[in-house]
Amino acid sequence: MTLKVSDIGEKELVKYIIANSKDITPDDTAITEFNSTNLISTCDMLIQSRHFPDNMSYFDMGFKAVTVNVSDLAAMGAKPLGFLLSIAISKDLKLDSFKEILDGVLKACEYYSIPLIGGDTNEASEIIISGTALGCSDKPLMKDTYNEGDLIAITGDIGLAALGFKLDVLDNIYVKKALKPKARLKEGIVLKDFATSATDITDGLASELYGIKKEGFGFMIHEDMLEISDEYKQLAEDLDLDYLDLILHVGEDFELLFTISKENLGKLPIDCRVIGEVTDSDVVEINLENGFVVNIKNKGYEHYVSD
Amino acid sequence: MTLKVSDIGEKELVKYIIANSKDITPDDTAITEFNSTNLISTCDMLIQSRHFPDNMSYFDMGFKAVTVNVSDLAAMGAKPLGFLLSIAISKDLKLDSFKEILDGVLKACEYYSIPLIGGDTNEASEIIISGTALGCSDKPLMKDTYNEGDLIAITGDIGLAALGFKLDVLDNIYVKKALKPKARLKEGIVLKDFATSATDITDGLASELYGIKKEGFGFMIHEDMLEISDEYKQLAEDLDLDYLDLILHVGEDFELLFTISKENLGKLPIDCRVIGEVTDSDVVEINLENGFVVNIKNKGYEHYVSD
Repeated sequence: MTLKVSDIGEKELVKYIIANSKDITPDDTAITEFNSTNLISTCDMLIQSRHFPDNMSYFDMGFKAVTVNVSDLAAMGAKPLGFLLSIAISKDLKLDSFKEILDGVLKACEYYSIPLIGGDTNEASEIIISGTALGCSDKPLMKDTYNEGDLIAITGDIGLAALGFKLDVLDNIYVKKALKPKARLKEGIVLKDFATSATDITDGLASELYGIKKEGFGFMIHEDMLEISDEYKQLAEDLDLDYLDLILHVGEDFELLFTISKENLGKLPIDCRVIGEVTDSDVVEINLENGFVVNIKNKGYEHYVSD
Repeated sequence: MTLKVSDIGEKELVKYIIANSKDITPDDTAITEFNSTNLISTCDMLIQSRHFPDNMSYFDMGFKAVTVNVSDLAAMGAKPLGFLLSIAISKDLKLDSFKEILDGVLKACEYYSIPLIGGDTNEASEIIISGTALGCSDKPLMKDTYNEGDLIAITGDIGLAALGFKLDVLDNIYVKKALKPKARLKEGIVLKDFATSATDITDGLASELYGIKKEGFGFMIHEDMLEISDEYKQLAEDLDLDYLDLILHVGEDFELLFTISKENLGKLPIDCRVIGEVTDSDVVEINLENGFVVNIKNKGYEHYVSD
């Protein structure tokens, strides 16, 4: 039998790439020592049919292409240096639509104070935007440098985008979070001096927790600390969806998930929400509101894998 | 009438992007001042249906994705720092084919001594490889800093790939150049200290000459200096193609086109071929073997434009 990419899935594929590339670190973002500091570089490709919902504006497509890349800089606490834009569009795309995409890219670059410094244009059957964000950091914040007893915290609500992708109405916090996410760049730069580790939530809380898990360490998340609103639960139920599944296994929040010592939490000059703690249990678990403690499934958004 | 992208073409689109982006230089490659040196960054996206001929191996696709990006570093005389790989594939792609692409990328990174430092994987209906090459240079070689009287030279034969794309047989210098091009990285680093300007030939000699042209300056190319072989002319004729059209207007050579003072030419420690000189004619012209001097058309490979 000839194996296809779908037979092993994206996570195994990434493992294969890392195992065969001596210079890639398992972090999402590359660190290159350079003239007594570190150059931070990261790239993310967005493809219209996979990443842009039908109700997303061209402006928001461009903005998001910058956000997803800047979010990786944010997770490292890196200061932005520049953004490169590789864009492919169909030759039948309206010129005005192209201009809207570019406007979204430029407004995002302005918002994050990251200059658009270069790029490439191409022709394809659909919109493909591949961005590269460059930054620098004297002391990059890694994703797995936490200690037992550290608190686990997030920079804002999670699960909103997951619900937003399912809603048709346009004007609410859920759809706004799904279509117009913002990266936590300023927060990341602050966290660099207070947190013990950080990553951004793109594929869902569960997927990120498993992504940062080291052998011998575990995580305990407390449902009540997630502060899930009654409205959220009701909207999920109306859609016949499990609200915890939305919160744990979908992602696209672009909030930062970080760990911090109890001592440093009080000193942290930004808003955050503690949702659990680092344990020595070697499992990723959640303390449900009903009192039961269950393991969280290692499931998140993954390419190549059919449902 | 609603304008489409194809109504203006790629060159105008790029002009629009540059005009609206205060931080983009018209050079192909971005220069960012960074800790007393310059960070050089460039990105190029290759799409299977546009850039990879049917007879190209998966290995060669991966290798070329690195080559096209490293070629931009070469044109600046930059030393390589790192390569980022954003790759999209279909979930039906054979796992072995994916491994061959990655092998091509890794072998190219080894060949150019540029470490693969990061990347992103994605799902698409065809193979899309977007690369970003990072380098550094204390004194980047620009593409339009030539002087009148400078000689115009190239690092090797041009037009070979253009012919190679048209040939079915596999084992000859033309097809090899089309499917397995190499970037002139070492030559670029040497040229930095001798040349007055440089660019790489991707869209054809004509397109590159017009790309670097400044007002008041012109270029005179001499056909006899191009040293076109009888075999080349015969193969083009057999295919009912104009050999000069292939050489001037197709590209994909990844040779460096550079300008150099007469004094420095004698000191240059690498092989090259002088093909003309910088003039004050304000036109791009060619002195044909038959004695006629004609203007070269500003025509090269361009996306979005129908033939």
